[in-house]
Parts: sequence; C-alpha cells; structure tokens
Amino acid sequence: MTAQTKFFLDESRMPKHWYNIVADLPAPPPPVLHPGTKQPVGPDDLAPLFPMELIMQEVSAEREVPIPEPVRDVFRLWRPSPLVRAHRLEKVLGTPAKIYYKYEGVSPAGSHKPNTAIAQAWYNQQAGIKKISTETGAGQWGSSLAFAGALFGIEVKVFQVRISYDQKPYRRALMETYGATCVASPSNETNSGRAILAKDPNHPGSLGIAISEAVEVAATNDDTKYALGSVLNHVLLHQTIIGQEAIQQLEMAGDDPDIVIGCTGGGSNFAGIAFPFLGLQLRGGRKRRIIAVEPAGCPSLTRGKYAYDFGDTAHLTPLTKMHTLGSTFTPPGFHAGGLRYHGMAPLVSHLKELGLIEAVAFHQTQCFQAGVQFARAEGIVPAPEANHAVLGAITEAMRCKAEGRSEVILFNLSGHGHFDMSSYSAYMAGKLIDMPYDESELAMALSGLPSVTA
Amino acid sequence: MTAQTKFFLDESRMPKHWYNIVADLPAPPPPVLHPGTKQPVGPDDLAPLFPMELIMQEVSAEREVPIPEPVRDVFRLWRPSPLVRAHRLEKVLGTPAKIYYKYEGVSPAGSHKPNTAIAQAWYNQQAGIKKISTETGAGQWGSSLAFAGALFGIEVKVFQVRISYDQKPYRRALMETYGATCVASPSNETNSGRAILAKDPNHPGSLGIAISEAVEVAATNDDTKYALGSVLNHVLLHQTIIGQEAIQQLEMAGDDPDIVIGCTGGGSNFAGIAFPFLGLQLRGGRKRRIIAVEPAGCPSLTRGKYAYDFGDTAHLTPLTKMHTLGSTFTPPGFHAGGLRYHGMAPLVSHLKELGLIEAVAFHQTQCFQAGVQFARAEGIVPAPEANHAVLGAITEAMRCKAEGRSEVILFNLSGHGHFDMSSYSAYMAGKLIDMPYDESELAMALSGLPSVTA
Repeated sequence: MTAQTKFFLDESRMPKHWYNIVADLPAPPPPVLHPGTKQPVGPDDLAPLFPMELIMQEVSAEREVPIPEPVRDVFRLWRPSPLVRAHRLEKVLGTPAKIYYKYEGVSPAGSHKPNTAIAQAWYNQQAGIKKISTETGAGQWGSSLAFAGALFGIEVKVFQVRISYDQKPYRRALMETYGATCVASPSNETNSGRAILAKDPNHPGSLGIAISEAVEVAATNDDTKYALGSVLNHVLLHQTIIGQEAIQQLEMAGDDPDIVIGCTGGGSNFAGIAFPFLGLQLRGGRKRRIIAVEPAGCPSLTRGKYAYDFGDTAHLTPLTKMHTLGSTFTPPGFHAGGLRYHGMAPLVSHLKELGLIEAVAFHQTQCFQAGVQFARAEGIVPAPEANHAVLGAITEAMRCKAEGRSEVILFNLSGHGHFDMSSYSAYMAGKLIDMPYDESELAMALSGLPSVTA
Repeated sequence: MTAQTKFFLDESRMPKHWYNIVADLPAPPPPVLHPGTKQPVGPDDLAPLFPMELIMQEVSAEREVPIPEPVRDVFRLWRPSPLVRAHRLEKVLGTPAKIYYKYEGVSPAGSHKPNTAIAQAWYNQQAGIKKISTETGAGQWGSSLAFAGALFGIEVKVFQVRISYDQKPYRRALMETYGATCVASPSNETNSGRAILAKDPNHPGSLGIAISEAVEVAATNDDTKYALGSVLNHVLLHQTIIGQEAIQQLEMAGDDPDIVIGCTGGGSNFAGIAFPFLGLQLRGGRKRRIIAVEPAGCPSLTRGKYAYDFGDTAHLTPLTKMHTLGSTFTPPGFHAGGLRYHGMAPLVSHLKELGLIEAVAFHQTQCFQAGVQFARAEGIVPAPEANHAVLGAITEAMRCKAEGRSEVILFNLSGHGHFDMSSYSAYMAGKLIDMPYDESELAMALSGLPSVTA
C-alpha cells in the first residue's frame, strides 16, 4: 500500500535544453518544398509566418537547443509535470506489467500544448511581434496560445473550426478569459474563408480551412505572425521536455521503460514523450518499442501515403513529406478533435519510414471504454485524444498478462477531459458509435496529391 | 527570474494525522441537538446516517486523528498538493506583499472535496456499507464522492439540485463516468421531494431540499448511509490536511504567513487551510489574521444570526448552532453554487464568535474580475467559489501596497473553473450582474428559526 505513486522532479532539475532528434538520425528528413517552385524553401520563405529564431529551430541540426530562462520561468507554474505509477490500474487489469504515465494535464490549459505555446509566444515577443494568428479544432491549442499571449502581452486571434466554435462554447470562454479573440472558421475575414462561404454559407469548417485562414492573416499583415500547435519540427522540439523529464523520473523510480506510447494527431505529444527515448537508442542505447496510437477514423500513419502534401486546404503552406490522407480528406466527426488532421508530422513520418516506431489505430468506443476504466481506477478523466494512448497502454499490459511478462510501459497522458464531458455523456448513454472514414473519399483525396519529382 | 515557484512535499511527508481544532479551543462548541427533544444528540441518534467511526470523529476531542493508510494511499494520486508562489500576480499588482496559494485543483475531481470524500467512502466501506446517498449543488461534491465510490466499490446516488442538473450536464457526465447515479432534486423518489413537486412540478430545487432527499433515503434504507461534503466537524477535520501541508511547504519556502484566506460556503475548504494555523496560535504561537470570504448574496457569517437551526429544508437534520440565514432562505442564483448554503459550519461559526477569525463578503462581478486577473497572470482559471478567496488575497495585497508593507499572504485556491466556463462566458460578455439577497426574505427566514432554550 505504501509504494510510491508520484515522482516529482525538483524545479532545479527541469531540463535546460530541448532535444533535437535530427542530430541523431541515420538519415536527414526530406526537405520542405516551396509549393510553386517545388524547390527546398529557405529561411526567408518562412519569414512572413514565423520569427527567425523559430525558423532556425525548424531547420536546426543541433542536438541541444537551449530553453530560454524566461520560458523556463513560466514552465515553473506547472512543470516539471508528474510521472505517476498506475498501481490501481495495474491491479484492476491484473497485469504483471508496470504502467507509468506522464501527466501533462496539470498545465493551466489542461494539456501539453502550453509547452510550445509559451516558447512560441516568447520568441515572437523577442522579435517585436504584437499579434499572432492561429487555428484551433478542439480548442486545446487555441486556449494554450491564448494563455501564452496573456503572459507575454501578445494579441492572439484564433480561427476556431465552426462546428467546434458552436458546440464547445466553454473552450471559447477559456480563450476569451485569457484575453484572446475567437472567430468561427470559415469566416468572412479572409479570402480563403470567403471562398468557402460563397459555396456553402453553413460550412462546418475544418482544421485545414482554419489553418488557411490563420496563415493568410499572418502572410498579409506585417504586424502579425502565425503559430502552429503541432506537426512542425520546432513544435515537436518544444515538446521534448516531456520525455526528458520522464527519463529522469523513471530513474528516480528505478525503472526503464520497455514500451513508450503516445497518441498521434499532428504528432507533437507523441514526439514529446518518444524522441528523448529514441535519442538514447540512436546514440547506442537499448532498443525500446515506441508506439504511436492514432484514431481509426483518421489513420494517417497506418493508412496514409508517405508523400509530399500541403498542410492546409487552401494550399497556402509549403509542401512537406509526410504520411498523409490528402489535404482534401475530411475525417469523420469522432470525438477527438485534436487527432482529426490529414497529415502527420514530417519527423514522425520519417521515423516510421525508418522503422524506428510502430503505429496502431483504434476506434473511439474502445478508446472511451479504456478512458472510463482508467478514470475509475486512477481518478483522472483523460481527454478523448489521450484515451487512445490509454488504450494503447492497456492493450500492451493485457498482452503482458497473457504472456506472463513484467514489462515496463510508459505512456503520455497528454491532457484531462474536463472540457470533453459531452463526449463522455454520449458514451455513457450508449450513443457513441465508431466512425470509419469513407474509403472512396480517401482514394480521391490521395489521387489529388501534388506531383513532386524529387 | 529564477526564484522558486512551486513547493512540493515528498509523499513521505504527507500528514499522517488530521488536526482536530476542538482539542485546542478555549471553549467547546455548543452541542448538536435532537430536533424533537431539543436535547443533545448521542452517537446512536446519528447511527442511521453515518458509520460509527465518522460519528466518533464528529464528537472527538483528540488533537490528532490518524489518517488510515488506505486513505493516504489514494491521496498519493494527487497529494501533497502544490504550494505556489504567485510571483506573476505580485508583479501585476505591483505589491510588496508575498502571495502564496495552496492549489487543490490538482485532484482528479478538480477541487478539495475528494479529501473528505475518500475518507468517508473508506469508513463506510469498512463498516460494510454498500450504498451512499448524497446531494450536490454545483457538482463538485457529487463528483468527488462518485470518484471515491469508484475506488472503494460503493454505489453512490447523488441528488443534484434540478437547476444544476439541467444547466450543468458535464458535471453529471463526470459523476456518471465514475459510475454514480444522478437524480434531479426535487425527485419523486422521496417523500420530501414528492411534497415539493406536488406544490410546484417545476421547482428548480435547492441544496436544502436535496439534503432532505439524500438524508431521507439513508434514514429509510438499512443498506444506505448518508454523506455530507461540508459543514460537519468530521468533514472539516478531513480537510485539515491542506493546512498541515501548507505549514510544511511555507517552511520550505522560508516564509510564515501573516494572513490566511479561504472562501466559505459550508466552511470546509476554509477550515482546511485555516485550522492548522489557528491551532499553532491556540497552542501559544503568534497571531495571524484568518479571513473567511463569503458571497454577498449568501452572507451567513457577516449577516446571518448565530443560532440553532436545521441543516435542510424539510427539517430532517439535527439542530446545530451556527451562523444561519434561516433554513428557508433561498439565496439568489449567483455563479458560485458551492457557496449557496444558508448555514455555516458550527466550528467556523464558533471561531467567529470567539473573535479568532474575520469575515468579509464580496459580490460576484468583482470576484470574477479578480479571477480573470489571476488567470492572465498565473494561468489557472479558478472556480467561481475560489474567486472569492482570490479577491480576498488581492484586496489584502493592495492594502499592503498602499501601506508599503511586505506581508505574507496565503490563500486556498480550492478548485479550478474548467467546469464553470459558462459563468466566465457570461462575465466576459458583460452579462454577469451582482445578486443581492432579498432583505425581507432574509428577515422572514430568520423569524422562522426554531426556538431553542439552551
């Protein structure tokens, strides 16, 4: 009964550097291409969108990138985040496996997203930027950037996917409490938005459209930059503080994980927990199983094509090589908005191609079943996105039980579900159904991939 | 920039005893009376409602009550909770005061309520109880007991005030996720409920009515006990773990608070932070200012009468001497459901009469203003109830600024507001108004107090 449950790092042991996996890769990731010339983009091409420090991080090959002290100082509000041994879940499952979770829901916004929002807001502030535009689907990212903007005195404008804007007023209230402005997307404020509304005034919106609008605002306003909450190299870089803390905390616990698990939408929380462990391996350490868990309704890693594609619907972004379902692919409306994106982070995609990570896809009802089981054992109600990682961990723990193996499983519990209780309501009422994607729509979206001859 | 922000206690330093302030009081609190005989109740009178261990805690005069190891083991899921130095808020206010907050929102249910829910569920389980009935207003208590029931295998039935049941479906979803059953109160399941529905089928309910229903179910079913989330001595006792941790954490920080602040509805989170500090003083330590902050719309400590009264509307409970607005008083519908109760904990009331604590009342718009200021500085969006404590702390910090004094202020941030964003929405939209109580209604409610000749 007295076994230690939580492992806290002292603030003095919070990482001082982000870990850049590019430095340790056996092969570099393919270059990002200009959508017009199909030639590799240079820093200047990205300058309208991002401050130069972030662009340099995007293309950096340095293993360690220093975390600025003012950023670390904000992190102290909630970091280092706890590592928790899931004793009670292990007991309920009857598994000989040891299950640990790194809990990112302790951040003020309730997820891992502030790890990069704070960093991005700070670099923008240092570059003299006063306004940032961004998009949000479920609202986790928008509220995190709103929080960051409040701390660094930057105006934040969030294009929120209309269906989420209408259905999730509480996320909007959170963004507004932090002082941000929310606009339902598609909106009348951009050419991209107006073009879509002209065809369908009641368009429910999508993440790809909202990205187009936010990018357009930044590209056409000198005083405004753009921020993205996942996918890009520098965003994944900022999340590596998660895994670096976990490495120290597992040392405190006297354990070494055999399996590391994260859910994947754009790939950032997965990269955050996984890359530091992969780095140990790439520098000669032992091999661990690294598992990305994605939604079966939007399975970019398991069913997408590894190809150059756009990051948005209006094709304003550069081309990146990634696992993609096609930029016109519209995922079904399952309840994990943070995972409803057609592409996967280029770095995560590259690692998958190199055979360094595994991927698996689950449908939502079994994910919610896992989430409820977790809540009744460990107390925390996970976000719908995080339920994918929970199910990944339970699946491995049950395999361990069947095989009589006492493996050590670590997963990233990327956020709590207190803003997502309507989806739990639907699940408890038996109204949640699995939502497969449309095979013919996927085929059509993939047939429209841009042609790139490398 | 590098000053320490969070102070974490190691799990090994989590308190092993609750602190019972009754042992140190200069005068004992007045006895609880039987509503029929008006004579002091004995343990047997309470036996239909509570397991004997909790009844013995209710009447205990022992200074230290051991926390059972299985209860401490559950606490390890989130306790010890962090003490945080509000560096950024201090800077925004420009105050020379030091502000610390003890953050109870890290619990799985998002508030301090699980501190007693876990203990109560465990003692019930040890007594062989299979079912517990309770009431909830805002939902914080109901979801906490639901969580506790899930961990100890006890069926929990929650009578949720109808207006909250209808307006806060996400709280209900949380209770159901933990496996509890929710019923809108007034309901057809009890005599108390049916009597009210007969007069008004659309009655919005009240905490007093919901208590009557939950008590009736326990009193009339041998297999069911009742649990209350505040007010009673044993509930306040269970919350003292908050202040005991804070004492150790402030020692780590090298500070000693001049002022200790908590919001008060029934009084339990206030008692939790305040009683251990008061105990130091009562045993010969230095005097500190201890401030209870209550809603101006339901001001039991500042405007109520110190008298014997019922805890519920149907008059099923014993009579306790407390600051009361009268058991028939209906507070206006301001957005801090956890503070909308006509009475105050007898122990807190007794301390007020002894001159050991101060009390102040604030209206809701200024509390939300303080909450938004806090969120934009410290990140955490407080629960509407906790905003009262935030405003109390800001008020004292601004006084320190005016007087040029560098006092140390500690307040209890009893919960986060992620389930209360609709009230922030209303505040941001300028739709929140102050809600004074009706003076004539108060006068009428007070005129109906039961007559007790001690």
